[in-house]
Amino acid sequence: MQDIIGQDIKSITQDILADYDKKRHIDKLDVFNQPDTKVIYELIGELTRVAYPGYVKDPHYRIYDIRNNLSMVIEDIAFRLNKQIAIALRYGMKLDEETLDATRTEAQRITLAFLRQIPQIREFLATDVEALFDGDPAAESADEIIFAYPGLYAVTVFRFAHELYKLNVPVIPRIMTELAHSKTGIDINPGATIGKYFMIDHGTGIVIGETTEIGEHVKIYQGVTLGALSTSGGRKLFNKKRHPTIEDNVTIYSGASILGGDTVIGKGSVIGGNVFLTHSVPPETKVSVKNQELRYNMGSCDL
Amino acid sequence: MQDIIGQDIKSITQDILADYDKKRHIDKLDVFNQPDTKVIYELIGELTRVAYPGYVKDPHYRIYDIRNNLSMVIEDIAFRLNKQIAIALRYGMKLDEETLDATRTEAQRITLAFLRQIPQIREFLATDVEALFDGDPAAESADEIIFAYPGLYAVTVFRFAHELYKLNVPVIPRIMTELAHSKTGIDINPGATIGKYFMIDHGTGIVIGETTEIGEHVKIYQGVTLGALSTSGGRKLFNKKRHPTIEDNVTIYSGASILGGDTVIGKGSVIGGNVFLTHSVPPETKVSVKNQELRYNMGSCDL
Amino acid sequence: MQDIIGQDIKSITQDILADYDKKRHIDKLDVFNQPDTKVIYELIGELTRVAYPGYVKDPHYRIYDIRNNLSMVIEDIAFRLNKQIAIALRYGMKLDEETLDATRTEAQRITLAFLRQIPQIREFLATDVEALFDGDPAAESADEIIFAYPGLYAVTVFRFAHELYKLNVPVIPRIMTELAHSKTGIDINPGATIGKYFMIDHGTGIVIGETTEIGEHVKIYQGVTLGALSTSGGRKLFNKKRHPTIEDNVTIYSGASILGGDTVIGKGSVIGGNVFLTHSVPPETKVSVKNQELRYNMGSCDL
Amino acid sequence: MQDIIGQDIKSITQDILADYDKKRHIDKLDVFNQPDTKVIYELIGELTRVAYPGYVKDPHYRIYDIRNNLSMVIEDIAFRLNKQIAIALRYGMKLDEETLDATRTEAQRITLAFLRQIPQIREFLATDVEALFDGDPAAESADEIIFAYPGLYAVTVFRFAHELYKLNVPVIPRIMTELAHSKTGIDINPGATIGKYFMIDHGTGIVIGETTEIGEHVKIYQGVTLGALSTSGGRKLFNKKRHPTIEDNVTIYSGASILGGDTVIGKGSVIGGNVFLTHSVPPETKVSVKNQELRYNMGSCDL
Amino acid sequence: MQDIIGQDIKSITQDILADYDKKRHIDKLDVFNQPDTKVIYELIGELTRVAYPGYVKDPHYRIYDIRNNLSMVIEDIAFRLNKQIAIALRYGMKLDEETLDATRTEAQRITLAFLRQIPQIREFLATDVEALFDGDPAAESADEIIFAYPGLYAVTVFRFAHELYKLNVPVIPRIMTELAHSKTGIDINPGATIGKYFMIDHGTGIVIGETTEIGEHVKIYQGVTLGALSTSGGRKLFNKKRHPTIEDNVTIYSGASILGGDTVIGKGSVIGGNVFLTHSVPPETKVSVKNQELRYNMGSCDL
Amino acid sequence: MQDIIGQDIKSITQDILADYDKKRHIDKLDVFNQPDTKVIYELIGELTRVAYPGYVKDPHYRIYDIRNNLSMVIEDIAFRLNKQIAIALRYGMKLDEETLDATRTEAQRITLAFLRQIPQIREFLATDVEALFDGDPAAESADEIIFAYPGLYAVTVFRFAHELYKLNVPVIPRIMTELAHSKTGIDINPGATIGKYFMIDHGTGIVIGETTEIGEHVKIYQGVTLGALSTSGGRKLFNKKRHPTIEDNVTIYSGASILGGDTVIGKGSVIGGNVFLTHSVPPETKVSVKNQELRYNMGSCDL
Repeated sequence: MQDIIGQDIKSITQDILADYDKKRHIDKLDVFNQPDTKVIYELIGELTRVAYPGYVKDPHYRIYDIRNNLSMVIEDIAFRLNKQIAIALRYGMKLDEETLDATRTEAQRITLAFLRQIPQIREFLATDVEALFDGDPAAESADEIIFAYPGLYAVTVFRFAHELYKLNVPVIPRIMTELAHSKTGIDINPGATIGKYFMIDHGTGIVIGETTEIGEHVKIYQGVTLGALSTSGGRKLFNKKRHPTIEDNVTIYSGASILGGDTVIGKGSVIGGNVFLTHSVPPETKVSVKNQELRYNMGSCDL
Repeated sequence: MQDIIGQDIKSITQDILADYDKKRHIDKLDVFNQPDTKVIYELIGELTRVAYPGYVKDPHYRIYDIRNNLSMVIEDIAFRLNKQIAIALRYGMKLDEETLDATRTEAQRITLAFLRQIPQIREFLATDVEALFDGDPAAESADEIIFAYPGLYAVTVFRFAHELYKLNVPVIPRIMTELAHSKTGIDINPGATIGKYFMIDHGTGIVIGETTEIGEHVKIYQGVTLGALSTSGGRKLFNKKRHPTIEDNVTIYSGASILGGDTVIGKGSVIGGNVFLTHSVPPETKVSVKNQELRYNMGSCDL
Repeated sequence: MQDIIGQDIKSITQDILADYDKKRHIDKLDVFNQPDTKVIYELIGELTRVAYPGYVKDPHYRIYDIRNNLSMVIEDIAFRLNKQIAIALRYGMKLDEETLDATRTEAQRITLAFLRQIPQIREFLATDVEALFDGDPAAESADEIIFAYPGLYAVTVFRFAHELYKLNVPVIPRIMTELAHSKTGIDINPGATIGKYFMIDHGTGIVIGETTEIGEHVKIYQGVTLGALSTSGGRKLFNKKRHPTIEDNVTIYSGASILGGDTVIGKGSVIGGNVFLTHSVPPETKVSVKNQELRYNMGSCDL
Repeated sequence: MQDIIGQDIKSITQDILADYDKKRHIDKLDVFNQPDTKVIYELIGELTRVAYPGYVKDPHYRIYDIRNNLSMVIEDIAFRLNKQIAIALRYGMKLDEETLDATRTEAQRITLAFLRQIPQIREFLATDVEALFDGDPAAESADEIIFAYPGLYAVTVFRFAHELYKLNVPVIPRIMTELAHSKTGIDINPGATIGKYFMIDHGTGIVIGETTEIGEHVKIYQGVTLGALSTSGGRKLFNKKRHPTIEDNVTIYSGASILGGDTVIGKGSVIGGNVFLTHSVPPETKVSVKNQELRYNMGSCDL
Repeated sequence: MQDIIGQDIKSITQDILADYDKKRHIDKLDVFNQPDTKVIYELIGELTRVAYPGYVKDPHYRIYDIRNNLSMVIEDIAFRLNKQIAIALRYGMKLDEETLDATRTEAQRITLAFLRQIPQIREFLATDVEALFDGDPAAESADEIIFAYPGLYAVTVFRFAHELYKLNVPVIPRIMTELAHSKTGIDINPGATIGKYFMIDHGTGIVIGETTEIGEHVKIYQGVTLGALSTSGGRKLFNKKRHPTIEDNVTIYSGASILGGDTVIGKGSVIGGNVFLTHSVPPETKVSVKNQELRYNMGSCDL
Repeated sequence: MQDIIGQDIKSITQDILADYDKKRHIDKLDVFNQPDTKVIYELIGELTRVAYPGYVKDPHYRIYDIRNNLSMVIEDIAFRLNKQIAIALRYGMKLDEETLDATRTEAQRITLAFLRQIPQIREFLATDVEALFDGDPAAESADEIIFAYPGLYAVTVFRFAHELYKLNVPVIPRIMTELAHSKTGIDINPGATIGKYFMIDHGTGIVIGETTEIGEHVKIYQGVTLGALSTSGGRKLFNKKRHPTIEDNVTIYSGASILGGDTVIGKGSVIGGNVFLTHSVPPETKVSVKNQELRYNMGSCDL
């Protein structure tokens, strides 16, 4: 009986293998040189340790001097990120020797440039932590925020990914932010521009599109979309500004949608929950849904 | 002191063990024959490799010939899925020898039938990738989509789970889609019917109910609910069509809710953001929230 | 060439290390005595096994007598939770010997008190399972709910975390609920009070704030916010009741927002999808969005 | 270039696969139902914990009550040993349903019989520890012996393996003693009969043959062979007594060889280092190499 | 207090780091390009699976068709062995680009040459298994030999290592045989030449030197040395024949030493236990220790 | 049926648990505070990396600057060794608070003292490597020796263990050398005193007793015993010099036994293979077995 099934499996396997001959995107069989999602995920973990060194234990070594430990972690990031960037640069290119050399050099240049930005990135992150602590009455301490807040996690990953995005690294920035998206439900495109003191609370369902620009001291709650008006143009919209601009000190409450590349929310404005905006508002405006008319039934009818 | 606590722990343990004698669902103590969530999760990983062979490295073997590798993976899927299906079939049955034999045979039949559908499933997935690439101006390449897009991941898992659902496998399809739900925030019931070229963007918060029917070339954005009008009927609604029908070429923007088993969104329609629909619309209709009246305050009052 | 880069890495590393001297929250370098997120996550897994013993295999031992196994798991929870609680209590304190002893004793007291509550917690969980099974026509069996439903998972973790919250354990309860948030998209603050027979369906995007009070037999769907009216008061609102009260037998459909510490939803009420409520409603009220005016275009214009 | 090599690998692989068609012992391709060396090794680890419970930590659970823990370990041994025994019994048989059932029942019978012997085995092991502690002036404590002495480890594994040997379990006893051989250099055939208070010191190079009989209070040092006179008879000697008998209170110093099935070393005898014996000696005999004539050169010539 | 110790650790660390500046062999600090012992050990495991495919389970995949599985394993061996060989070839060379290319090509050539020899190696191994089964009355079955006999394991590893030795691969062959030495106590230098039907019984303590030549149907027991007469010449003896020649059908019993590059043991000879030979013997000679004079004391005096 | 067996297991388990009440050494049930063999084994690995930094890759981090890496490893050793030493010191003591504090302080003192000896230990190891390279014509390079030679491994572990032995650490030194014994078949008691330029070749079966003293430039081959004349005195011999003294530049060939605390092998002597010595020899003596009389049979009789 075993044999009959073995036979079935064999023929099914043949059919599936034959299915790879159809030359669709999904039929690519080359297994070299694609970025390794698992490594990128581990790199995020290491970058997080560099960002908040006192909050994550080294899983491998017990330490007296965290500076030695961090030196090691930074070296490890350098090595592995360099390799992933080289892979990402080559991805889809024809691999002659010259290109190989060029991408190797370029990957090193990018890796070093990225690492040089870390103090700068941490300067932003320090303000994000401050904003969250000042803004959330439920936070017991700044430590709780660094340990547990998904909003800070998503922003941290975004800030690292954005730096790689600016250095024109393909694919990796998006893999990074999608990993944060998966963990937090917060989807920030690595192309977005986000100022200091950025605060996300709860966060699930937030979408921040690729060409969004966000100023300083902005707060955003769960379910907010900063999106494109329509994507029916598809690939023709590539590289156009399709997402809104949010100026300094704006607060956007849960469920609000702000759409369109020309939409500007002026400084200090407050956008109320569930507001659906496709046009600009001037500074210091408070926008709320005016009169959601509700029906109140006291009877037994179903909604 | 250690001993005093040991004593406390012992008595607490006795109390908790006594608590298992109450014959509630949660007091089931049998530990054999339940499906193994961890194995099912690994099977999803292997099925994903079969679906997109050039995008995931084998974690165990370095390879020259990916076809050999895929043969192995398919065999491994066959073995382990067969075992999980047999467990799921037996689950809750009384285990006499005859039933055991019958479920063993049935599990093999189902496993083979499932594997035979893989080329068919991949035909659908190829169209989903194409739809995402054509529809998302932020995508750099089809590769980026396969590596990073949660929408594609959720649909991929759904398509495999749906096949098992059609083969009447209990529990496993739902475990599969809930794992994707956990990773992506996209909740597609394995019972739904979804046509080719299905595109989900961002995706967090999407709910697609069990009896939903979706045509081809449909696009859905984050926060969309394709749900039941009301669930106050509870278990009486089991097996009724409770969720809407979405015809070909429909686009549904973020936050829209379309409810009810009789609701049909006609071909080519576009449902705007935050629209709440409980009735059908004819083909080629563009539905949007008409006039969300907003209140604009320039003062300093709180929202 | 290697050496030049080694040189670069070395100087970059120096710069990053220098960046830790700025005395911001993120510059904390002490690596002892912070709670270990990984351990807390494993404790959740063990607590889940204690809650639903027949649904999760022991990963380490094959067993004949699950009661022996559960005894072991309970002891392991006692040990490791005790350690984490002691760490959390000390966190941020100055560590003189006296404090160390005091926190050690206090951690033991709390751990035992927590474990004593487990039968009580399981009594609530049993009702939650029942509510889900009765309320969801898509559920094949109560087993499927325990295996796969994210709503049950989030509530389970919440109920354990809430018990620790009541015992004034810092940081850990929040880490626990945020882990559930990450897995399910359901964000329940451990401070909330939730009665028996609580049912969450789909769940992604739900936010339940710290001072929310929820009665028995309440059902909540995806995207519901039980939040604060405004958080512009920031830390001044600490410890104020900022979130609503939901009485018994209330159902809240997807996307609804109910805000404010004085807002009370009376018994038996039904809150419709997308309703935005900042005031109380009396018992047995059915609230729905009255007339979302929709625009229907049959033409080809973009939304 | 990659492709040329891929081609080479492919053709080499074909040649190797073709090599499996030669029907030698080494060409067996069936991969089911062979005993799993890794599992047997883990079983030895668990049996060692049952033998010396206070000396090995549970790698998985922290415990207050070691008796709960040991209950679990015993159950795990029962499960996994039962499975390995069933496999070993079936090994090489034709697998019709009847045989399968018979071996399943037999495996259970053997497993239970084996477990029932554990207190008896421990009674012997307690004497072995005592003998080592009394006999070795280098031992600081009995604990050191249990933690570190290879002689005790080899004897412990032997005593368990011997019990399975007596129950006619194929292959597994030998795999067990060979694992101990690999760790200690002490090769005790599971068929040997060894009395209480058995002491091995240093131990590397000791060989104790299958039909050896050893009394109580026997001490053996490194490099001792208790062997067959000649094996030139090959398989014709199967099941014959080929190895010596060592009576109570005998000490055998390092490098001695005692050969032959009829050789009896009488009670209380002492066999000196490097003695080569192929005949019996009466009780209370002290045998030593009489006059190893040595050449003493004071010059510079090479040996 | 912590800080004082941290200070001590820091100064101790400085001292140890300073110790690496002494330019001894052990002060090499370069960590690239050394062979990876762990990988070589895993390669041995994979080669063993290729040698005896029906005796070792794949740890990663469950399989229906072992030939697919073996194809994968062979590819994995090719990949990883190739890399290790390249490293070993480069080891100690100055790494200019040209050398790198040359070693890369050479490593590929060697890897392919090695793989091509596998059927040939297996032909020898098949005879070794046969010899063990025929020669050991304690063996229940050929399977037991393949599962458990250290002699076969050591010879298997030797035969693979010897092939690499013949291909002039540095370091790796010795690492391979030392790993077998560690597991079995049998030390066969990869340079030795060993004919078919080679049988080692028990084996602990066997040493077979680099320039030993062994014919067919030779049996060797534990503690046998086939060594050099003297090594006082040190490195001047490099590449000289320093070890004996053993012709066909010779048996060498336990503890015998046969030394010297000119020593030839003629065909069919039998060398008895503990014999110390530094000269040749003609074919068909039986050599035994003539009259080990023993002293028998019946008194109570110490040896 | 399952239940019947469950019943059997339960009663067997009870019997085994009852067996722990007999108050023998092996019945110790306390599971705290015993040294952790696994950790000690890992510490050996880390000490080996500190000894030969260029020869072992860090398994966790890729590095540019091995000095950073080694700093980390040294800190990790400090931490974990300190903990193990504290455990070993307390082992068997009654644990009142005062003792706890005293052992904590003592453990720190010892750990620091041990670490301070590392450069000294490395000075000895450097000479051992040199001796092996000069003395073994089969060694291709000093690297091969460090990678693969069991003799060097055993001596390395011994030198570290001996330092702890001198600092009066209980149990741990012996666990360390027994781990090396298990890997190499070379049994060096941590109490032995061994000078620089110590060379062990092949090594299996070597035993070097606790009170042995060995000078500089000594070479020892496989199967050599440096042992006690008799151990029949048992524990009364504790702390007496029972093992020989080997002066500088002595070579001892394979299988030789040198026994007794008063036995001194004078400088520059060469002890031949299989020599059995229980008395001293003056400097520059060459001792060999004079005339091992051999019997040569050309007939067919068995040995």
